[in-house]
Amino acid sequence: MNVRIALTGFGNVGQGLATLLRDRNELYERRYGVRFTLTGVRDRSGAVTDPHGLDFAALLHAKSEQGTVAAGANDMERDVPTFLEASQAQILVEAASTNYVDAEPGWSYVLGAIDRGMDVVVASKGSLALHWNELMGAAKAAGRHVLYSATVGSPVPSLQLAERVLVGADILGFEGILNATSHQILTAMSQGASYAEGVRQAQEMGMAETDPTLDVDGWDAAAKVLIVANAVFGSSLRLDDVRRQGIRGVGAQELERAREANEVIKLIGRARLVDGKVVASVAPEQRSLDDPLGRLRGDAMGIVFDTEPLGRMAATDEPAGGYGGGVTTAMTVIRDLINLARDRGWTRPPTA
Amino acid sequence: MNVRIALTGFGNVGQGLATLLRDRNELYERRYGVRFTLTGVRDRSGAVTDPHGLDFAALLHAKSEQGTVAAGANDMERDVPTFLEASQAQILVEAASTNYVDAEPGWSYVLGAIDRGMDVVVASKGSLALHWNELMGAAKAAGRHVLYSATVGSPVPSLQLAERVLVGADILGFEGILNATSHQILTAMSQGASYAEGVRQAQEMGMAETDPTLDVDGWDAAAKVLIVANAVFGSSLRLDDVRRQGIRGVGAQELERAREANEVIKLIGRARLVDGKVVASVAPEQRSLDDPLGRLRGDAMGIVFDTEPLGRMAATDEPAGGYGGGVTTAMTVIRDLINLARDRGWTRPPTA
Repeated sequence: MNVRIALTGFGNVGQGLATLLRDRNELYERRYGVRFTLTGVRDRSGAVTDPHGLDFAALLHAKSEQGTVAAGANDMERDVPTFLEASQAQILVEAASTNYVDAEPGWSYVLGAIDRGMDVVVASKGSLALHWNELMGAAKAAGRHVLYSATVGSPVPSLQLAERVLVGADILGFEGILNATSHQILTAMSQGASYAEGVRQAQEMGMAETDPTLDVDGWDAAAKVLIVANAVFGSSLRLDDVRRQGIRGVGAQELERAREANEVIKLIGRARLVDGKVVASVAPEQRSLDDPLGRLRGDAMGIVFDTEPLGRMAATDEPAGGYGGGVTTAMTVIRDLINLARDRGWTRPPTA
Repeated sequence: MNVRIALTGFGNVGQGLATLLRDRNELYERRYGVRFTLTGVRDRSGAVTDPHGLDFAALLHAKSEQGTVAAGANDMERDVPTFLEASQAQILVEAASTNYVDAEPGWSYVLGAIDRGMDVVVASKGSLALHWNELMGAAKAAGRHVLYSATVGSPVPSLQLAERVLVGADILGFEGILNATSHQILTAMSQGASYAEGVRQAQEMGMAETDPTLDVDGWDAAAKVLIVANAVFGSSLRLDDVRRQGIRGVGAQELERAREANEVIKLIGRARLVDGKVVASVAPEQRSLDDPLGRLRGDAMGIVFDTEPLGRMAATDEPAGGYGGGVTTAMTVIRDLINLARDRGWTRPPTA
């Protein structure tokens, strides 16, 4: 079956999604009986829509040649209801830059999509970090699905572990390495680089922004802790509820002390139920090399759930070479899209 | 909603299931809106049925006092159709001892349940290892669900990773530590114990049978490789198709060589697509301590998927103290039961 998608944001993740769909859509049709079309794309400069499906290669070409998908397109289509209506999409993928001040422009599109009876796949953390209760309440009232596994340290399956694997068990808490950029910088620092050199290297690798604040001061990791905690514990944490310490303060002495103990320093995000309340934090911690998180190399991520009666369940991902963060995050969006299509009955049964 | 279960086999796993349901059923009703009742239980000596639900504590008491749930029960109920009819169950949980010769008595119950329009949760590997195609074909033709995550190195989520997490990606192969008993014995041997001492220790810990053949010669690990490979690659491997080398042949010299390299020997099950064909094997391998499988202590298990484009995705489980293998496997059965109830629409939505 043909599934129409409207996409807001055409940066690394949005372009990664268009690239993967260009290359793999036929595979998905053979394997799952579902074909995804992009019927609307909005970037910072404008929007294009076509309910019959936009051409993936043409979108990527326009973006790389003109810096926008929207050259010559009608400016009206940037208006939320007009854009969504013109796209005739069943699903909104929200992948604009994260903004922790008002979560815009993503938040208006997410609410607008739910209002229109669309399901939503969120790849940008703003709406979840600032408006968790309102978003989940609106989706529940409208019978809409909201999937967001790309927001929590993709492609590590934090949410799938909790929902489909640890079902029936009690989750007491979790800890994870959830931000790749700060992990890469800390790894460089533990190998002798200064903080500034670590940041520069991560920027050269395309992992760090010009202003790395959201990563190195722990905002990104804190947002991910909040999202996993709210999903797992049913809590309503907001960003302010996560105690937050980044990696700027990690000094040469601390790194040296860890090295002497044959250990490493990692930025760990964690949340735990304490007397029925969720206590959440992000901070650098010293870990041994045979710890499931301590052993991870700089570009890997992972999460460990502490459960009763199953003990410690860990999931980690060590990326293959040759793919940027945009493609792996986009792959996580596709995971959500296919699972959503299955849950809606839009796919063939897997064995058919 | 009330979900009626018929259970065949009342050993460690069956008793673990009754214990968990006795202790946690009210929690599940609160959390998922589903209440599980055992309406039929069959062990080696007979069967009891009550479509209104058997008492969990009374079943456990009868087993421990009289060695069977069936004292005084009508012998007719051991007959497959009579037992299933008398139970009025919607789901069969098949947890009898695994048998790789004819997969009986479990196989007759599984087929009988599908014939009656029941869904099936399989915790015993015989039916899958010997009759994969026939079982999956019968279930598909009847529109029945067959879940079997307890058979593949529970509670490691091998099947859930493949189905819900790696969806959309390509799985190139996987490797895992899938048999706890041989893992425990090898760990003791790497700490200086002889093979015979390792087996005796594992027997004292309740992990090894009097005849440990199925574990130490790799049969159990090979069956698990087969099940994961068939599920993931859509293949139809049988037990004979898995090249198999157990741990009896691991010598002191090999162990010493690994120790000198600061590495360990693990029994690794693996399967991989090679020119479109699935190549599967079980054999001891030397691993480094920072490898996701090499780092695992003797009672832990894990699996690593090699994927494109997501790289290496690993899941491991390190059990908490105080629980036997029966309880953790039973917990995996409950995972399947709740996921099945969700897929059938028998649960409340998670956010309701």
